[in-house]
Amino acid sequence: MLRAQICCSRNLSFLMEAHDGLSGTIAKRAGFKCLWASGLSIACSLGYRDANEASWSQLVDVVERIVVSTELPVLVDGDGGFGNFNNARLLARTLRQRGAAGVTLEDSCFPKMNSFVGERHPLADIDEFSGRLRAEDTVAEDLVLVARIEALIGGHGMDEAILRAHAYADAGADAILIYSRKSTADERLSFVSAWQNRLPVVIVPTKYYRTPVSAYRDAGVSEVIWANHSVRAAIAGMRQVCGRIFGEEGVGGIEQHITTLDEVFELLSYDELARAEARYLHRH
Amino acid sequence: MLRAQICCSRNLSFLMEAHDGLSGTIAKRAGFKCLWASGLSIACSLGYRDANEASWSQLVDVVERIVVSTELPVLVDGDGGFGNFNNARLLARTLRQRGAAGVTLEDSCFPKMNSFVGERHPLADIDEFSGRLRAEDTVAEDLVLVARIEALIGGHGMDEAILRAHAYADAGADAILIYSRKSTADERLSFVSAWQNRLPVVIVPTKYYRTPVSAYRDAGVSEVIWANHSVRAAIAGMRQVCGRIFGEEGVGGIEQHITTLDEVFELLSYDELARAEARYLHRH
Amino acid sequence: MLRAQICCSRNLSFLMEAHDGLSGTIAKRAGFKCLWASGLSIACSLGYRDANEASWSQLVDVVERIVVSTELPVLVDGDGGFGNFNNARLLARTLRQRGAAGVTLEDSCFPKMNSFVGERHPLADIDEFSGRLRAEDTVAEDLVLVARIEALIGGHGMDEAILRAHAYADAGADAILIYSRKSTADERLSFVSAWQNRLPVVIVPTKYYRTPVSAYRDAGVSEVIWANHSVRAAIAGMRQVCGRIFGEEGVGGIEQHITTLDEVFELLSYDELARAEARYLHRH
Amino acid sequence: MLRAQICCSRNLSFLMEAHDGLSGTIAKRAGFKCLWASGLSIACSLGYRDANEASWSQLVDVVERIVVSTELPVLVDGDGGFGNFNNARLLARTLRQRGAAGVTLEDSCFPKMNSFVGERHPLADIDEFSGRLRAEDTVAEDLVLVARIEALIGGHGMDEAILRAHAYADAGADAILIYSRKSTADERLSFVSAWQNRLPVVIVPTKYYRTPVSAYRDAGVSEVIWANHSVRAAIAGMRQVCGRIFGEEGVGGIEQHITTLDEVFELLSYDELARAEARYLHRH
Repeated sequence: MLRAQICCSRNLSFLMEAHDGLSGTIAKRAGFKCLWASGLSIACSLGYRDANEASWSQLVDVVERIVVSTELPVLVDGDGGFGNFNNARLLARTLRQRGAAGVTLEDSCFPKMNSFVGERHPLADIDEFSGRLRAEDTVAEDLVLVARIEALIGGHGMDEAILRAHAYADAGADAILIYSRKSTADERLSFVSAWQNRLPVVIVPTKYYRTPVSAYRDAGVSEVIWANHSVRAAIAGMRQVCGRIFGEEGVGGIEQHITTLDEVFELLSYDELARAEARYLHRH
Repeated sequence: MLRAQICCSRNLSFLMEAHDGLSGTIAKRAGFKCLWASGLSIACSLGYRDANEASWSQLVDVVERIVVSTELPVLVDGDGGFGNFNNARLLARTLRQRGAAGVTLEDSCFPKMNSFVGERHPLADIDEFSGRLRAEDTVAEDLVLVARIEALIGGHGMDEAILRAHAYADAGADAILIYSRKSTADERLSFVSAWQNRLPVVIVPTKYYRTPVSAYRDAGVSEVIWANHSVRAAIAGMRQVCGRIFGEEGVGGIEQHITTLDEVFELLSYDELARAEARYLHRH
Repeated sequence: MLRAQICCSRNLSFLMEAHDGLSGTIAKRAGFKCLWASGLSIACSLGYRDANEASWSQLVDVVERIVVSTELPVLVDGDGGFGNFNNARLLARTLRQRGAAGVTLEDSCFPKMNSFVGERHPLADIDEFSGRLRAEDTVAEDLVLVARIEALIGGHGMDEAILRAHAYADAGADAILIYSRKSTADERLSFVSAWQNRLPVVIVPTKYYRTPVSAYRDAGVSEVIWANHSVRAAIAGMRQVCGRIFGEEGVGGIEQHITTLDEVFELLSYDELARAEARYLHRH
Repeated sequence: MLRAQICCSRNLSFLMEAHDGLSGTIAKRAGFKCLWASGLSIACSLGYRDANEASWSQLVDVVERIVVSTELPVLVDGDGGFGNFNNARLLARTLRQRGAAGVTLEDSCFPKMNSFVGERHPLADIDEFSGRLRAEDTVAEDLVLVARIEALIGGHGMDEAILRAHAYADAGADAILIYSRKSTADERLSFVSAWQNRLPVVIVPTKYYRTPVSAYRDAGVSEVIWANHSVRAAIAGMRQVCGRIFGEEGVGGIEQHITTLDEVFELLSYDELARAEARYLHRH
C-alpha cells in the first residue's frame, strides 16, 4: 500500500505525522491513508530532544503502538539508522517485525541533530551511507526504503544533492526525500526538475507551507509529508488549557473547548470492548 | 513535597494531568507544582483503552519519562495495583525506583474498566484490598499512598464509602481519594463532611466541573486533580488540525493556529543542548 | 511448522525451553526445531518469581528476542492470558506481531502461582476460560492455540480434566496440554487414553522424567516439552563457577570448564558481522 | 559502597559479572559484594553481538533487573556512552535513576566492537572523550565514573595510555580501567607501575587468567573484574544439557546434573512470597 502510494501512483499523496497511538488514530479518523512516524514528534512527546536521545528500541516501541492502533501503513523516520550499517539494518529488521511499511534513512552522522537546529551538520560520506542503504535493503526487502538527502540543509548545493540521489538510487533506495529548510519551495522544485524522477520524490514542506500543493503535483512530486503538525497542534491545545486551568483554578471555563470523555471513549473504540465483553466474558 | 502538599498543607492544591514527557513539561510551564500521571490519559495516548490493556511496566516507563522531563513530584494512578497485593507492591517499588512521589490504589478488581464506562464494576473485598495497601505501604514507605474508593461509583452508598475509608486508613493509606461520576459535587462534599478529615481527601471533579473550587476549599478538601484535561485538549487540537489539513490539502491555513517549531525547541530546552555542546563537545 | 508438528504429524516431537536469545540459540544449535518460551524460566532469568510478576509486555519483549535470535517456531507460555479475555487476546495479538508461532493459555486465575508451588490453586470457571480461548482464537487465527488444563494439578480429578478438554476443544483450542505434578506418568497416560486424541496432546514431563519417551509415543502423545532444563543447567553452571571464583580468588581453576570467548563469538555469529563489514562498511 | 570499595580501600576487591537478575542473584549468593553488568554478557544473553546492537535503553532495563534482584552495588559497562557527550550523560542519568552505583565509559567510537574481536578499533579523540567524561560527571555526581582506556588494545603503546589516563583523571574520572588482550599481565602491571596510582586502577584479567591475584595486590591494583565468566559458565551448562536431551530424547540422564526446581524456588525467594501471602492475601 505504501509502496503503491509512493512508487506506483501518479497522484500526489499525503502522509500525516503521528507520534503515538492516539495521534495516529486521530489522523486515521481524519481520512489519512498512510502515516509518518516523525522522529522529532516522537522525541518531543517522550520529552526528549531530536538528537538521538530516544533509543532505537524506544522509537520502535512507539511505532508498534501507532501500527497496532491504526492498522495503517506507517513510514518511519529512521534518522541515520542509529549508527553504522549494522545498526541501520537492525533497525529496519525490527521495524518490519513490528509492522512498519517503510523507513527513511538520512545521510547524517550519529548522533544527529534536528535539521532545523544549528548550522554545521556534517554529511555522511556517500559510500559509507550507501553501505547503510544496501545493508538495510538486504534484510528488509518488503520495507519501502526512502533515502533522505541532507545536502541542501548543510549548504552543499544542488550538484551534491543530485550526485547523492543517483548514488542512493544505485544502492537500492525506493524513493528520495529531499530536505531543505528554506521557506520557499524553489530549492525542492529545482531538485525535482534536475532529478527528472528517476525515483519518486518525497518532500516535507514544513517551512514553505505557503506553496500550494498544486505546485508539487505539477512538478511530479510523489508524496508530501505533513511532518510535525499534529504534535504542534497538541502542544497548542495543551498549553492553552493548562494555562487557563492554572489561572482560573478550575475547569469550568475550558470544558467546552476540549474533547468530551464520551468522544475519547468513541475514538479509542470502547464500544468494541463492550461488545466483546458481551460475547466473551462470562461472569460467575 | 507531594506529601507536604497533600498531607500537611491547609491550602487546597492542584494536580495537573500528564500522560507523557511533553504534557508534563507543558503543565510545569503553566505553573503546576505537582502532576497526576493519569491511567486513562496514558492508556489513551498509547492507543489503549483504560481497562488494564497497558501493562504495568509500560505505565512505569511513561511515568519515568514524566518524572525525568519535569523533575516535579508525580502522583501515579496505579489502578488497583495490577493484580493482588504482590503485584501492587511490585508496582509501588518500581514506581519509587523510577522517581514517582506517590501512587493511588483503587479498590477495584483486575482487570479494571474505566470508572466512567459501564455500570457493574465489582468492588474488591475490603480485607483483600486492605492487604494490598498494607503490602504496598511496607515496600515503599516514602511513596505517598492514596487509597481510592470506588464505592460511590458502584452505587454502594455513603455508609460503605465511609466504612472503607476507615479500613484503608487503618491499612496505612496517607490520603483518601473519593470517586464519583455524578455531575454535581454533593456526593463528595457529603463524604468529606461525614469523614471529618481523619485523613486528607483528594477529589477528581471531572464531571462536576461547574462547582467552584471555593466549595472544596471550604469543605477542607486537600487536593484537587484535573484528571484528563490535558489529553482532551490535545485531542481537540489534533482533531481540528488533522481534519483541516486533510480537507485543505495543505498546512497554510492552520500554521498560525499551532505552536511554531521554535516554540517546540524552546519547550524541550534545545538551548541547553546547544550550551552543553559548546562546553563538552570537541569536534575534530 | 509448529502447527504441522503439533497438529498434523504422527511422530512425537519435542520443544526445548528457552528463556532469552542466548538459550534459544543454544537449543537451536543442539538440533531442536521448535522452542518453548517458558514462563517459569523467563521469570527466573529476569529475577522475578513465576507469579505474574513479569508484565505481559516484558514477556513479549523476551519472546521477540528468542524469535529473532533463532528464527525458529516458538510456542509461548501465556499463563492464563494475564487477565480476562481482553488481556488474553491482546497478548495473543502482540505475540503474533512479534513472530511467535503459538501460545498456551491455562485455566488459572490472575495472578497465577507456578504449578509446582503451593496447593490451593483455584481453577478458572469453564465458561469464563472458554471465552478467553474464543477471544484469542478470533484475533490470531494463525497462532497455534494450546489450552492447558490445570485440573489434575488442583486435585479435581480425571473427569473434570476430560470435561474441560472437550469444552476447550469446542472453544477453538488446537491442542490440549495436560499438566500434572505427580512423579509418574500414569495420570497423563490415563488422560490420553480417556481423551482418545480428539485434539493432539502436549505433555510436560518435568517431574516424571524417568518415563521413557517411547511410552508417550505409544500412547499417541503429540508433543513433549522439556520445560525448564536449560535454565536449570545454566543455574548449575553459574553457581559452581561463581562459588569457585569467589573461593579461589581467581579464574585459573575454572577457565577450562567454561565456554571460551571464541566459542561465544561463534555462537552469536560474530563472523557474519565481520563479513557484513567487509561488504557494507566503507571506512574513510 | 562501590566508591568505598574502588576508591578508598587498600584491599584488592572483586566484581563478578552479571547479565540478568538471575546471574546477579547467583553471584550474590556466592558471596560477591559488588557486581559488573557486562556489556558483552548482556548482549550475549539478549542474543545480540557486543557491537552496540542492544540499545542503551535495553541495557538500562537489564541493569534495573540486576539492581532490584540483588540490592548490590552494580558497576555498569557503559561502552563509550552510546554516542557523544549528550548520549553519555543521558545514559549516566538514567543508570543512576535505576539504581546503578557506577559506570565505565571507554574511549571508543560509536558503534563499538568488542575489544577481543578484530584489530582496527579506532580510539576516540582525547579531548572529545574527556568531554564525555566531564558531561557525565556533571549530571551524576554520586555515580562512580570509571574511565576505560582502550589504547593498549589498539596497539597505541604505553605512553598513549598514560597520557590518556592523566587527561581522564583531569576530566573527572574516579578510577581508571586499563584494558589489554595480551595473555600475560605484564602490560597492565607496567601501566600500574607507570601510573603510580594517581587514581585507583581497575583491571579485567580475562585473557591473563593464570596470573595469581597476589600479583595485582602487590602492584596496588584496586579492583579486579571477572568480566564474563558467569555467562560462559551458563553457556557451557546449557550446551551440554541441550545436546544430551536432544540426543537421548529424554531428561532422565541429565536430571541429576542440573539444579532442582526446589533450588530454583529457593534461589528466587518463593518462600518470601508464601510468607507475604499469609500476611497480606485475604482470600474470600
